[in-house]
Amino acid sequence: MDADNEAKGKVSDQAMQNPQALAALQDKIDSVSHSASIMDSLPKSVKRRVNALKNLQVNSTHIEAKFYKEVHELERKYSALYQPLFDKRRNIVSGEVEPTDEECEWQSDHEDEAALAEDLKKKAAIEEKTEDANEEKPKGVPEFWLTIFRSVDMLSDMLQEHDEPILKHLQDIKVIFSGPDQPMSFTLEFRFEPNEYFTNTVLTKVYKMKSEPDAEDPFSFEGPEIIDCDGCEIDWHKGKDVTVKTIKKKQKHKGRGTARVITKQVPNDSFFNFFNPIKVSPDRELDEDSEYTLATDFEIGHFFRERIVPRAVLYFTGEALEDDESTGNPQPAECKQQ
Amino acid sequence: MDADNEAKGKVSDQAMQNPQALAALQDKIDSVSHSASIMDSLPKSVKRRVNALKNLQVNSTHIEAKFYKEVHELERKYSALYQPLFDKRRNIVSGEVEPTDEECEWQSDHEDEAALAEDLKKKAAIEEKTEDANEEKPKGVPEFWLTIFRSVDMLSDMLQEHDEPILKHLQDIKVIFSGPDQPMSFTLEFRFEPNEYFTNTVLTKVYKMKSEPDAEDPFSFEGPEIIDCDGCEIDWHKGKDVTVKTIKKKQKHKGRGTARVITKQVPNDSFFNFFNPIKVSPDRELDEDSEYTLATDFEIGHFFRERIVPRAVLYFTGEALEDDESTGNPQPAECKQQ
Repeated sequence: MDADNEAKGKVSDQAMQNPQALAALQDKIDSVSHSASIMDSLPKSVKRRVNALKNLQVNSTHIEAKFYKEVHELERKYSALYQPLFDKRRNIVSGEVEPTDEECEWQSDHEDEAALAEDLKKKAAIEEKTEDANEEKPKGVPEFWLTIFRSVDMLSDMLQEHDEPILKHLQDIKVIFSGPDQPMSFTLEFRFEPNEYFTNTVLTKVYKMKSEPDAEDPFSFEGPEIIDCDGCEIDWHKGKDVTVKTIKKKQKHKGRGTARVITKQVPNDSFFNFFNPIKVSPDRELDEDSEYTLATDFEIGHFFRERIVPRAVLYFTGEALEDDESTGNPQPAECKQQ
Repeated sequence: MDADNEAKGKVSDQAMQNPQALAALQDKIDSVSHSASIMDSLPKSVKRRVNALKNLQVNSTHIEAKFYKEVHELERKYSALYQPLFDKRRNIVSGEVEPTDEECEWQSDHEDEAALAEDLKKKAAIEEKTEDANEEKPKGVPEFWLTIFRSVDMLSDMLQEHDEPILKHLQDIKVIFSGPDQPMSFTLEFRFEPNEYFTNTVLTKVYKMKSEPDAEDPFSFEGPEIIDCDGCEIDWHKGKDVTVKTIKKKQKHKGRGTARVITKQVPNDSFFNFFNPIKVSPDRELDEDSEYTLATDFEIGHFFRERIVPRAVLYFTGEALEDDESTGNPQPAECKQQ
């Protein structure tokens, strides 16, 4: 050992005996594990008892998991109660059913604003009548779901111009919960009227859920979470698949040096990629981009289930958008308090 | 009418006929009521149908209200299942029960960090033993609840130095749900060991809830909300009431011009004001400050119920604090998905 190294050795020894250096080192460890440092500051007998409390807390998370399973059961039960209302909504949107005058009475809560806009409305009414005379009578509520896709940021981010004419044929979105003896999941069913783009009448996306505390990290448990999803095959009519695009590419013949143009199909941005999600596999880790894409997909699935499907008309009129903004809570909670 | 006014009159008339000015006015009205403007753009026959959809949506909110009542019932049921764990926690915290070695085994998930800190721990252990020898053996987990009050921002904001010695006597916080036939509410019970400050053994705060859509604004319904709360009388020992302070004030005798010093009791900042909340009254509107204070109180009540009581040990060790930060979600959701 040369003199230089010997000196260094002395410095580190001093650090271990120097209270300030020791404190700095302690801080370093604290930042690695905040809770470990709190535990370290406790007398051994107290630390032992806190460990017992933590074990009780683990038991608590298992009771919580059962609670959430029962909430899921309740949701299943209530989805049957909501369904007649949703069916009626679908029939009015598609134009199959014309609501009665009584069903259409709506007491506006903006009486004075209405008075303010009276003049304008009169002008609008004249324009309206002219339009009606020139065009054919609208059936149901045209572009009901497409309008929602356009207004909700999370959905409009996925929406491409070529998706819009297809989504005009979307007539209903349904949420179907898994049965009581099945693994926890929900399915989104997108129902289309017959159209020139694909032969499917229903496109589905299944979200698989888990309501179990993680054995490695039980305290992170906050209720059911989406862990995987499955899309469906779309049977596109020839040349109508918007999820791929055809590009032309020059290809040189190696030997002869002549070039020819070949066409090649490559992926294309589209909402309909929603039905072909990234697959989670236990064998390989996802890269950061895929992780992000999948997390966004899960969020969208949750949003369809929790907000869009239950209150579609409010996203159509924009009333739900105002709510989401004013509460500053775009992330929907399953059952929010206060 | 003079020439000036006549000119002004002409300008406004022009504005009403000028499409650009008209559009600007429309924008103004749009900003007043976004959804009204979307509705206005629809042909009359479609608008009528959308009103029918909105009426269906109102029916939906009433089903939702029933759902939340059943979730509340479920919470009542589960609170009975958690209670044995919470009772055990209380007994360990107070020192009434010493947990067995088996109950205190905790498998650290930070094995390598633990190895890193090994040297420090050895030093800490030496300090610990010295301390133990000098002081009396700690009973249970000293300052368990006070530590939580100090660590959670929402609580430490209320905490005053003079509250701390009192909160050292806090032994348990319990949440009691209202019975199935009672109006929806929950009670926080703060249980104290006998102390020199007040004679109460339990201080209570009742939070009254509502799970009904508002008739005026049914679409704002998002589940049960706290609508009112009640505190309790604290029977302070003489001179121990920290919610008031005595100030001295000079008072001049009007006639004689002599001055004397009188003492006067005025309100004092303290956590214990939590038990003397602002009363909501249908007769008078609250001012902005009181509104804010009450909203904060409701948030704190909800936070005790949803987070602090169910996972107290994790707020003691700091583990729950890390979670609240990393999720960026300090506002607890009753049952959060994903």
